[in-house]
Amino acid sequence: MAGEAARGATAYVTLEPCSHTGQTPPCTQALISAGIARVVAPINDNDDRVSGRGFDQLRAAGIEVSTGLMAQEALLDHAGFFLRNSQERPWVTLKLAMTLDGRIATATGESKWITGAPSRKKVHALRATHDAVMVGAGTARADDPALTVRGFGAHRQPVRVIASRLLDVPLMSQLAQTARDVPVWLCHGPDARPELRTAWDGLGATLLPCQINAGRLDPSSVLQALGAKGITRVFCEGGGQLAASLLSQDLVDELHVFTAGVGLGAEGHPGIGALGVDHLVEAPRFQLKSVSSCGEDIHHVWRRSDQG
Amino acid sequence: MAGEAARGATAYVTLEPCSHTGQTPPCTQALISAGIARVVAPINDNDDRVSGRGFDQLRAAGIEVSTGLMAQEALLDHAGFFLRNSQERPWVTLKLAMTLDGRIATATGESKWITGAPSRKKVHALRATHDAVMVGAGTARADDPALTVRGFGAHRQPVRVIASRLLDVPLMSQLAQTARDVPVWLCHGPDARPELRTAWDGLGATLLPCQINAGRLDPSSVLQALGAKGITRVFCEGGGQLAASLLSQDLVDELHVFTAGVGLGAEGHPGIGALGVDHLVEAPRFQLKSVSSCGEDIHHVWRRSDQG
Repeated sequence: MAGEAARGATAYVTLEPCSHTGQTPPCTQALISAGIARVVAPINDNDDRVSGRGFDQLRAAGIEVSTGLMAQEALLDHAGFFLRNSQERPWVTLKLAMTLDGRIATATGESKWITGAPSRKKVHALRATHDAVMVGAGTARADDPALTVRGFGAHRQPVRVIASRLLDVPLMSQLAQTARDVPVWLCHGPDARPELRTAWDGLGATLLPCQINAGRLDPSSVLQALGAKGITRVFCEGGGQLAASLLSQDLVDELHVFTAGVGLGAEGHPGIGALGVDHLVEAPRFQLKSVSSCGEDIHHVWRRSDQG
Repeated sequence: MAGEAARGATAYVTLEPCSHTGQTPPCTQALISAGIARVVAPINDNDDRVSGRGFDQLRAAGIEVSTGLMAQEALLDHAGFFLRNSQERPWVTLKLAMTLDGRIATATGESKWITGAPSRKKVHALRATHDAVMVGAGTARADDPALTVRGFGAHRQPVRVIASRLLDVPLMSQLAQTARDVPVWLCHGPDARPELRTAWDGLGATLLPCQINAGRLDPSSVLQALGAKGITRVFCEGGGQLAASLLSQDLVDELHVFTAGVGLGAEGHPGIGALGVDHLVEAPRFQLKSVSSCGEDIHHVWRRSDQG
């Protein structure tokens, strides 16, 4: 787009330019053709088809290449892309909007609203930074959510994913009825009834068959299915069972917790379901990344210990 | 103590000087005799025996009286004193040291340690700002705590209170065995066995008979017993049942929550026991006062909506 202005210029990019034809032609060739004199790129691409070849091609064309600048920030920005390349699964952000005592609904199922409007707005902003938003079937049934990004004038909506072994989410739900407007993908088990598959297909939803394990959808299989479809970052909004299933298999990369100043007591629905943890050393642990007030709530962010 | 230097001087105090002989002679008389020219005091004492009479006596003696300066701060500082005068109960601070999902121990009872050393140090500092530290019998049995202030060179230890309807805390526990060193008070029900009363009395503990309600110690009766013994601020350190009992009767003035970056799942022991809340509007709500990181944990403080 810069035309003649690109000749002799420096290009700043956040990742090694690709050297292969993927969904688009090689970026290296575009940079060379444009007459760029220098490329500043923090990190190598870990895609087997690139992995240093991009930089090599640039250097071979006489372009100066500088690497390492803000490498940590770039690694984190591309964490989903790298995870998908190396582990064939997207980055998983788990959101928990809870009471002081870790509850997401009363015993009678009331959950609107535990957290305040500023927290809910931040959740919409977080959805917009992910390729996909995911909930379990229980949450889809109980809350009938739209899972869209609202209030930010977003041009592109994340894919809406329901993890539902049996496809037992009402066909009159918001998600089902709007599947033609914003994509809805259903990760289901092999035992979902064929007539339900047909019905969802007829509504315009995409069906992704996944494996089950001990009677439940296997979360690794769900994430692998999403990765295979190109998803690099998924935002999981619960409920408690899906959260527990991801946590117990060590598949959560980042936690965003919104805590309201309210207590619901032991009868409330737990934000994290059964984990089967007997000893503290076995419990999933996260590192604090930030904490701040958010309206009348608090917003705390935790990350896996092995992430930057 | 200032002697001649007090003559003509201004005295700054945080509360209206008392005009009656309580545990000490009237403060007004001491100020007048010392030759103080001006008294700056933010707020009136709400004790019926003072309530404006202190200021009147000073003015009658020709002393200039200025009130209102930092009144909100003074009200909060003396909140326990005022509560005891007006409602015959101490200020209640509830501490909850929990996982991300509101758990205080694993299903097998493991709780050491969920939060880190900096949080535990802050708990000691908080104990030191209260007249009494209180736990339920379950926590006394499970944790065998000392409940003393350690690491701050404290000259005065808060009274250690156990709320135990049946006095069913081991006589070999730390609290029992050190009752002669730092006071231990037992709030018990009318159905505690006489031989246990005798045993605790023999160990140097103080027995405070309280009422029961629906088979449990009535928390209002417990607080009233503490207020009658002069306690103005009590720091409650759980467990879940005592916390729930105080919260369900709207007896918690301030919450100090320490949250660790760990999840224990639905089988863990809840930090707040059963509250009997069916609808969100009935749930106890608190206002955020502060939030910050504390070592690897976060520390958030919440206060009743009707407190300053």
